[in-house]
Amino acid sequence: MKDQINVGLVGIGFMGKAHSNAYMNLNHFFDLPFKVEMTAACDSNTERLDKFCNKFDWKSKETDFHDLIERNDIDIIDICTPNAMHYPIAISAIKNKKHIICEKPIALNADEARKMWETAEENKIKHMVGFNYRRVPALQLAKQFIDEGKFGKIRHFNAVYYQDWLLNPDFPIVWRHSIKESGSGTHGDQNAHIVDLARFFVGEIEAVCGAKEIFIKERPIEGSEEKGVVTADDAAQFMAKFRNGALGSFIASRFATGKKNFLRLEVFGSKGAFSFNLERMNELNIFSVDDDLAEQGFKTILVTESVHPYINAWWPPGHIIGWEHTFIHEIKDFVEAIAENKTASPNFYDGYKCQEVLDAAYKSFDTQKWEEIKQD
Amino acid sequence: MKDQINVGLVGIGFMGKAHSNAYMNLNHFFDLPFKVEMTAACDSNTERLDKFCNKFDWKSKETDFHDLIERNDIDIIDICTPNAMHYPIAISAIKNKKHIICEKPIALNADEARKMWETAEENKIKHMVGFNYRRVPALQLAKQFIDEGKFGKIRHFNAVYYQDWLLNPDFPIVWRHSIKESGSGTHGDQNAHIVDLARFFVGEIEAVCGAKEIFIKERPIEGSEEKGVVTADDAAQFMAKFRNGALGSFIASRFATGKKNFLRLEVFGSKGAFSFNLERMNELNIFSVDDDLAEQGFKTILVTESVHPYINAWWPPGHIIGWEHTFIHEIKDFVEAIAENKTASPNFYDGYKCQEVLDAAYKSFDTQKWEEIKQD
Amino acid sequence: MKDQINVGLVGIGFMGKAHSNAYMNLNHFFDLPFKVEMTAACDSNTERLDKFCNKFDWKSKETDFHDLIERNDIDIIDICTPNAMHYPIAISAIKNKKHIICEKPIALNADEARKMWETAEENKIKHMVGFNYRRVPALQLAKQFIDEGKFGKIRHFNAVYYQDWLLNPDFPIVWRHSIKESGSGTHGDQNAHIVDLARFFVGEIEAVCGAKEIFIKERPIEGSEEKGVVTADDAAQFMAKFRNGALGSFIASRFATGKKNFLRLEVFGSKGAFSFNLERMNELNIFSVDDDLAEQGFKTILVTESVHPYINAWWPPGHIIGWEHTFIHEIKDFVEAIAENKTASPNFYDGYKCQEVLDAAYKSFDTQKWEEIKQD
Amino acid sequence: MKDQINVGLVGIGFMGKAHSNAYMNLNHFFDLPFKVEMTAACDSNTERLDKFCNKFDWKSKETDFHDLIERNDIDIIDICTPNAMHYPIAISAIKNKKHIICEKPIALNADEARKMWETAEENKIKHMVGFNYRRVPALQLAKQFIDEGKFGKIRHFNAVYYQDWLLNPDFPIVWRHSIKESGSGTHGDQNAHIVDLARFFVGEIEAVCGAKEIFIKERPIEGSEEKGVVTADDAAQFMAKFRNGALGSFIASRFATGKKNFLRLEVFGSKGAFSFNLERMNELNIFSVDDDLAEQGFKTILVTESVHPYINAWWPPGHIIGWEHTFIHEIKDFVEAIAENKTASPNFYDGYKCQEVLDAAYKSFDTQKWEEIKQD
Repeated sequence: MKDQINVGLVGIGFMGKAHSNAYMNLNHFFDLPFKVEMTAACDSNTERLDKFCNKFDWKSKETDFHDLIERNDIDIIDICTPNAMHYPIAISAIKNKKHIICEKPIALNADEARKMWETAEENKIKHMVGFNYRRVPALQLAKQFIDEGKFGKIRHFNAVYYQDWLLNPDFPIVWRHSIKESGSGTHGDQNAHIVDLARFFVGEIEAVCGAKEIFIKERPIEGSEEKGVVTADDAAQFMAKFRNGALGSFIASRFATGKKNFLRLEVFGSKGAFSFNLERMNELNIFSVDDDLAEQGFKTILVTESVHPYINAWWPPGHIIGWEHTFIHEIKDFVEAIAENKTASPNFYDGYKCQEVLDAAYKSFDTQKWEEIKQD
Repeated sequence: MKDQINVGLVGIGFMGKAHSNAYMNLNHFFDLPFKVEMTAACDSNTERLDKFCNKFDWKSKETDFHDLIERNDIDIIDICTPNAMHYPIAISAIKNKKHIICEKPIALNADEARKMWETAEENKIKHMVGFNYRRVPALQLAKQFIDEGKFGKIRHFNAVYYQDWLLNPDFPIVWRHSIKESGSGTHGDQNAHIVDLARFFVGEIEAVCGAKEIFIKERPIEGSEEKGVVTADDAAQFMAKFRNGALGSFIASRFATGKKNFLRLEVFGSKGAFSFNLERMNELNIFSVDDDLAEQGFKTILVTESVHPYINAWWPPGHIIGWEHTFIHEIKDFVEAIAENKTASPNFYDGYKCQEVLDAAYKSFDTQKWEEIKQD
Repeated sequence: MKDQINVGLVGIGFMGKAHSNAYMNLNHFFDLPFKVEMTAACDSNTERLDKFCNKFDWKSKETDFHDLIERNDIDIIDICTPNAMHYPIAISAIKNKKHIICEKPIALNADEARKMWETAEENKIKHMVGFNYRRVPALQLAKQFIDEGKFGKIRHFNAVYYQDWLLNPDFPIVWRHSIKESGSGTHGDQNAHIVDLARFFVGEIEAVCGAKEIFIKERPIEGSEEKGVVTADDAAQFMAKFRNGALGSFIASRFATGKKNFLRLEVFGSKGAFSFNLERMNELNIFSVDDDLAEQGFKTILVTESVHPYINAWWPPGHIIGWEHTFIHEIKDFVEAIAENKTASPNFYDGYKCQEVLDAAYKSFDTQKWEEIKQD
Repeated sequence: MKDQINVGLVGIGFMGKAHSNAYMNLNHFFDLPFKVEMTAACDSNTERLDKFCNKFDWKSKETDFHDLIERNDIDIIDICTPNAMHYPIAISAIKNKKHIICEKPIALNADEARKMWETAEENKIKHMVGFNYRRVPALQLAKQFIDEGKFGKIRHFNAVYYQDWLLNPDFPIVWRHSIKESGSGTHGDQNAHIVDLARFFVGEIEAVCGAKEIFIKERPIEGSEEKGVVTADDAAQFMAKFRNGALGSFIASRFATGKKNFLRLEVFGSKGAFSFNLERMNELNIFSVDDDLAEQGFKTILVTESVHPYINAWWPPGHIIGWEHTFIHEIKDFVEAIAENKTASPNFYDGYKCQEVLDAAYKSFDTQKWEEIKQD
């Protein structure tokens, strides 16, 4: 086995920065099977790339992703580009036998996603999709409780993902407003996360029905006097029926005034319940019917004990970690999957299944009725 | 003008007790145009009725609501019976020129509700429907803010009403489980409240689409070895599109494990937002984009200042009031409407419009598609 | 045994109103051994008295407390006057063999308080002191947990009672600013409550040391151009050592900007802990080391279940009660003590022991050192 | 000016790890005047040192701090040893003209601290003391508000620092239990932080009076059957009078059951107030009397906006940072002070003034009376 694994990063925006932080800190806090090396970063804008590599110590640069993918010294391709590029980059990289970690949503639609998953499997590479919120220690803990049956059979999975960064009508058009570049707006961006968490906690979804809205139809184009038409949804919400009989509710918005990055889960089961809020991501709230009636209530667990998932690597009890740590955990788990030749999770299959749900919901926005998700 | 107004109460269960409490305390805390007299209570079970009247000082008793309605010494009929009786009692009472306060949901369906409203108007009686949560001081304050434009144009109205009292499968069948007696389950009971609040804060709803579930299909019949079939929904949720362009989400459940009477509103507008939780009903959370960016955040107003709605009648700042006070406020406002010959609010029209939304949502549970609400 | 017990109220301010509310509602919600009759209210200001009695249905009036006390038809004297009058009224009433419920602080100093206690005992009357917060269901529940040993040995009792009603320097002088009429300021008013709760939960205090401050030295006299000198403390805080080895901290202020009636307890024991906040008085937060480490956390019990103290008389789970209900509970317990010929609690002994602590703390404000409380 | 600055770290325990994390991330997120190099780490235990340097990429090692201090290639000495070593290491390092960042509490007593400060000043080196909580963005923001006069004149500074890691009587003796090695227990460890914050927000303290307790007098010695005597305080609390007339309360405990690292401030001024809780360190709660009365309340600012202190270096709004970021901010500020030849803050003077308060409080534990702090 090699003692080092080399990463090539494509895309150096917000996610590129978050992933860089992960690579920089990974080796220092976890005992990994490999040393993870920040081998090369790739972006077409050389000035921006220079600055980025300089800042985060990427050892080399590429301006064309094909070049990056063809390099023999790269083991993992990390895809942090706008959504429309996920598919072409991933397919090329897979064919070059690179392992892949790809940001979410995995693709523009389920067809692309399925092809990515199938191609990856055929080529026997390891693949992961960047649903980093599975790596919040509090949510890993919730998953342990679910698996132990602590909450019984789940009946309600109600999730919201509120942001408000588009509130100002003068906020200019960016790629995230274009259906062509992003596939969808808040739906693919924010609902993708909570759909993945729904599958993580409750299982597959059978049918969905929803509605979307574009509140501000036109926005300024930066450096121009003209306005551009917004094609991506500002808000998107839908209901779901799960295979296990549970009901679901999913609401994503970029117009949830006052909420910056507010992802809340409320999950109710036959024996207990939990809730979670990303703005207080070190806390998990649980309820159990096993407590004496006089003592029942929601308990707030501060998930910073060494017995909690991932925490042993960090600080003593009560010393909270930040949002970016979720990426460190994610990439740690991916590297371990490679080392142990195990299936990573969530992987392209999860990306694909999530995308199916998103696609069905998106379709229901137009058909105005429930849409079923075919179950394989 | 008379200096006293006499009330006849029909129905002496949970709501009968809450209304009795209101009548008992009303005159002591508010300066009313009339003294409100607890003239008669009515129930077919004489033993239960004796106990009830004795406890809450109702001056006389009737065992048949027709007798009550025909009494000349009664000015107001207060209807607290199971839902199926609302319509016949109300219609009879209206024809006897009684003013009516009727518990929610106003009727089993919108047709009944509309007829109640029309009959009431024709007979020029005052009518109110018991959406008591409009009388929570925090929500009256929110309404003031809405009307002042403090939150701008509303874009999201997301509400849940979580309870968990049916969680235990051994909980026996009661009238609330029967579609025949109740019209619906959690839908008419809990969604009715949040639909009314939606209309209060945002205005009319144009279309809805939802889903319901009965998690426990059969329940024990008390005093029998057999089980009865549950026909009323355990959980009912739907999305809504408002006339003003806002999106809505409504979730009601009696299986929200750990939540006892948790009604939460999250309302987002172009200039601000508010949220509210009935379990902390003395608090209102507001957000304003007018604050300096560095100082923006959700503010928790403890709605116990003398400048806050209804509070002047009660205690000094910081001394919270209880759930039952909402009924005192409600009946105070109703009595004042009678005294001043004004339209009470929310009245049978509101009950009818709420019922239209509930009916359309209920229909969508079967049709599996969006249902429009005809706008008059 | 009589089937009715008659109350005479002295003092018709804020506390007079709160007690009236209690008497009005008492019989309607609890099954009492006696019907409690609101026989007479007393105040020297006849106009104010007329209005008060009219509002709250007191059946007769007295303008001199001596007359009230001498009436044969009165069984209980309820003292709600300014503090300086507690002692003379109580002593007279005791000699007339009246049972007494007296607002806190029981007297201007421990000597008075002790004499009240001794006289009451000699005359075998029932006596209670109005530490109504012992009657918050959440705190009764906490007391049950303490008594069961759920929290182990208590080591820290940290309490604050924050208000801010004196913040405005233009707020005029009232009796509560005068050391002569009130004995002390925030100390006797707010610290009295938390000292009583300390004794309730932890036991006797052996030594104290504190500091006080008057932030606004002079205030306007209403209806005058002159200013009056404030002699009563605006803020008063002290540390305590308990007989059981625990440490205590007590802080009271009327200048805690933004806090209206914020009484918080934080109590830490060898096996668990609890905290409480009066502004959310239906909630109790508990922690137990018996939980698995991965599941430890503070649990918020919504104290509205029928198994919780006093709640069975009120509403279903999740329907909160208000601040004023504490007085209903208090007087219910007092009336039952009379009926069953048992010692009421907290009684004049508790008032006296509380006053000893307050006096010692007050002394320490001057001596600048720890003061011991003699233990009998 | 050099373009690189070299750090030598002494002490590789918990704080050594936290500081290493800071150095590793510093250059990647902030534009610094120097590249900060992790030149050498020092510890007497070579095995532990090897592992540590390997993990955190320290470039070289020393086993004797004298050797480290004498190296010409070191510019900054970072002292993370047990408290008793702070003084000798600092004095030696200063004489070798090294800049120093020293963990808190700065020394075993104010005499040592004063000498450290004076020696540092004489030798014109830059010095900082590791009160990292000044670098929490929320607290920097609070400081801005204080300086702008937003809260008016401060009247109450009430702080607690609750932990519970000594709760278990079987937890073995460590250096923190020995008065000789640590100077004090929770007092120097936890009270040091909140005293520093008190000086930061309110200014100098004039007099203090307190109490301490050792709840578990003897603890197991690891690897031995014998028990060792605990000499350092388990809990230490005191009151304070500030030069500006404010009152203070400080409580530190390692027996605050259920609280892991709970540092709470409640600061009340004539025009507003703020509160803060380290377990939710991305939030600041503020209150202002300038709001309309009907809208007054505590507002929770999620301190993650780019306009907030330090945040621009990190993530978009709503993406919280962790506890360890405070060290990155701290060292960034220290390096900038060196680059700009400015006084760092908090520096050895602040360490000394804090120590004076701690010493006076500690003395009062024995004298049982208020102790004054001489003001220079």
